[in-house]
Amino acid sequence: MTDKTVLISQQGAVRILTNSNPGARNAITPTLYAELSAALTDAENDPEVGAIVFTGAGDFFCSGGDLNLLAKRRELPTAERREILEGLNNLIRALRDCSKPVIAAVEGGAAGAGLSMALACDMLVSARDAFFTVAYVKVGLTPDGGATAFLAEFVSRQVLTEMCLTGDRMPAERLHALGAVNRLTDKGAALAEAVALAAKVATGPQRATTRIKTLCRQAHHATLEEQLDAEAVFMVESQGDAESAEGIGAFLGKRSADFVALRRQKQDAS
Amino acid sequence: MTDKTVLISQQGAVRILTNSNPGARNAITPTLYAELSAALTDAENDPEVGAIVFTGAGDFFCSGGDLNLLAKRRELPTAERREILEGLNNLIRALRDCSKPVIAAVEGGAAGAGLSMALACDMLVSARDAFFTVAYVKVGLTPDGGATAFLAEFVSRQVLTEMCLTGDRMPAERLHALGAVNRLTDKGAALAEAVALAAKVATGPQRATTRIKTLCRQAHHATLEEQLDAEAVFMVESQGDAESAEGIGAFLGKRSADFVALRRQKQDAS
Amino acid sequence: MTDKTVLISQQGAVRILTNSNPGARNAITPTLYAELSAALTDAENDPEVGAIVFTGAGDFFCSGGDLNLLAKRRELPTAERREILEGLNNLIRALRDCSKPVIAAVEGGAAGAGLSMALACDMLVSARDAFFTVAYVKVGLTPDGGATAFLAEFVSRQVLTEMCLTGDRMPAERLHALGAVNRLTDKGAALAEAVALAAKVATGPQRATTRIKTLCRQAHHATLEEQLDAEAVFMVESQGDAESAEGIGAFLGKRSADFVALRRQKQDAS
Repeated sequence: MTDKTVLISQQGAVRILTNSNPGARNAITPTLYAELSAALTDAENDPEVGAIVFTGAGDFFCSGGDLNLLAKRRELPTAERREILEGLNNLIRALRDCSKPVIAAVEGGAAGAGLSMALACDMLVSARDAFFTVAYVKVGLTPDGGATAFLAEFVSRQVLTEMCLTGDRMPAERLHALGAVNRLTDKGAALAEAVALAAKVATGPQRATTRIKTLCRQAHHATLEEQLDAEAVFMVESQGDAESAEGIGAFLGKRSADFVALRRQKQDAS
Repeated sequence: MTDKTVLISQQGAVRILTNSNPGARNAITPTLYAELSAALTDAENDPEVGAIVFTGAGDFFCSGGDLNLLAKRRELPTAERREILEGLNNLIRALRDCSKPVIAAVEGGAAGAGLSMALACDMLVSARDAFFTVAYVKVGLTPDGGATAFLAEFVSRQVLTEMCLTGDRMPAERLHALGAVNRLTDKGAALAEAVALAAKVATGPQRATTRIKTLCRQAHHATLEEQLDAEAVFMVESQGDAESAEGIGAFLGKRSADFVALRRQKQDAS
Repeated sequence: MTDKTVLISQQGAVRILTNSNPGARNAITPTLYAELSAALTDAENDPEVGAIVFTGAGDFFCSGGDLNLLAKRRELPTAERREILEGLNNLIRALRDCSKPVIAAVEGGAAGAGLSMALACDMLVSARDAFFTVAYVKVGLTPDGGATAFLAEFVSRQVLTEMCLTGDRMPAERLHALGAVNRLTDKGAALAEAVALAAKVATGPQRATTRIKTLCRQAHHATLEEQLDAEAVFMVESQGDAESAEGIGAFLGKRSADFVALRRQKQDAS
């Protein structure tokens, strides 16, 4: 019998991936990176999956790094420390580059690298009483996993600096007002709401969805010219795709579009 | 007799350009791009024009692409599809590069490329009951005309992704809270309010206005060093311009500045 | 006896720098740039200083450039005008590059280059009744000192354009809602609140604080890849630093971390 860190389940077209280390509020374990990356690849390759939800077991999303492990990190050569950090960075890249949308479902809180993982997802559903914290400074460390990049997408430099220099908790409601939380829920209801949002997205045109995810991923860092070009490349592809034939045909025929049947097809030559 | 797509009128120093295809909620027609670009150039070259308002005829701003036309786009070679898209992109560039400020006045709604055109303008006035939607995904298509670039200037990646993946409507009030709508009005009053805002801006120093528009256009994509440099280049020009002689002289002399008389002058050698 | 433009005082670990030209609402004087830059360097080099507050004497933060001086700027060759502007730009860079956090305390208002200086700081505390204005256009001039870069970090292009083209005042409450003001206070209480926030930050791990400031400074202009890399470089350093040994040790030992004693130490070889 093997203990898995990442639990995998399916609800309709939604794949649910659960980081499970409940004894330590789902703190990051050495096995998380490889298991989660593998689970994302499986979901990408499975035609029955339209969207993915990433959550934590029990009532807390993720408390970040394990301080007992971090305490020993100083004894390693810097090259090894960097290699371990690339494990986290690769996980962040896997969430970003996954061809299917990933929605985080947060209960309780997300701290340190837990915050980075929650914000690395494409969308975010959170219980109203949850909190988010860039905790590192409290133990003399500095943010990692893209925390400062993700926060800068929606908070001012002044608030970003305060969050990073104080490590104070930001309530989910404030994150919602600032736009980074898509849905606020009652305590205990974040997973169900995330699955509902994922199910809605999972019925959409899959290849268009992948193109849209790519555009949204780069939009905050691209110039208008770069984005005009990327949008045009994708629109030319979309116009030749069976998905738009179905979508436009359904609209003109006054019926609902059925994109799910097209999920297994490769894109048409265009 | 020719039917024009773009109606042109003047109110004081404000040029009003109206996209008129009311039978199809001002959906984009093949003639729109050339006519609107030409009308913008005319307004730029006319010393009686200080600012421009762009709106739609009747009670809806623009419903975006014509799906009857889009349905046939797949039959074209990809190079031709791309060429048609460059028509839209060039219109977006014309709005951006116009040396005079352009204000969008939105009634009803702005969908698809209609959203892109509204957000491409320098400022935005909207009726309170209007909505904005990145509609494309509903028919299997992907955003174009800079929609993802313009939205990323003021919404989080999480909200951007939700808007693009669901195609759901965002109410004007939410866009106002997020800062992209400068003025909310009662239904039917957006044009008058946009003209009032344009008239105010039109009395300003015209060459300084053009420099400011350029700075604001690039600010979201430039580094601090790039922006410090661009600001300094323009400030050196402005300090040598008759406009600042008038502005500073009026302030020190405790009278109102009159920049309108300077509109016809070329910039002083400096 | 010499009249200093920048008054220097100390409160606990907080250095307070006060721009003092109260007869002209603390308008910029020719001596400000050199004195403030020197005072920042002194504070950086003083191990008793953990954070810095920058404010204006009396009840107004800074009214920007002196129009009597600006009126004569046109008579200078453009190269000399540019050189004077680089004085302001260098001050902005000094605030940004200072290795210790700088918090602006604003009473009354911040206009023109006063706005640029307030927003160049790492955090911002403002009296509730204060206002912020990009005043330049009213006298035929254009923004400088990074005003458009700093505003673009938290307002939409549409609001940025309105602020720059109209010169209208933005209330501190609006700036707070948009996230650029960290704390709103009663009239007269901004300095005390800024000192309290600075004192909190000043007890933190100093080398981690400098790394965090650097990350926050570049986050709005960097790509995710650039930020992942910068964060990893700093995290490797932080993991080898005595500060994290103290921070993690204190956490695991259930005691409060004492970073202040480490302030004088150089970073450990790592």
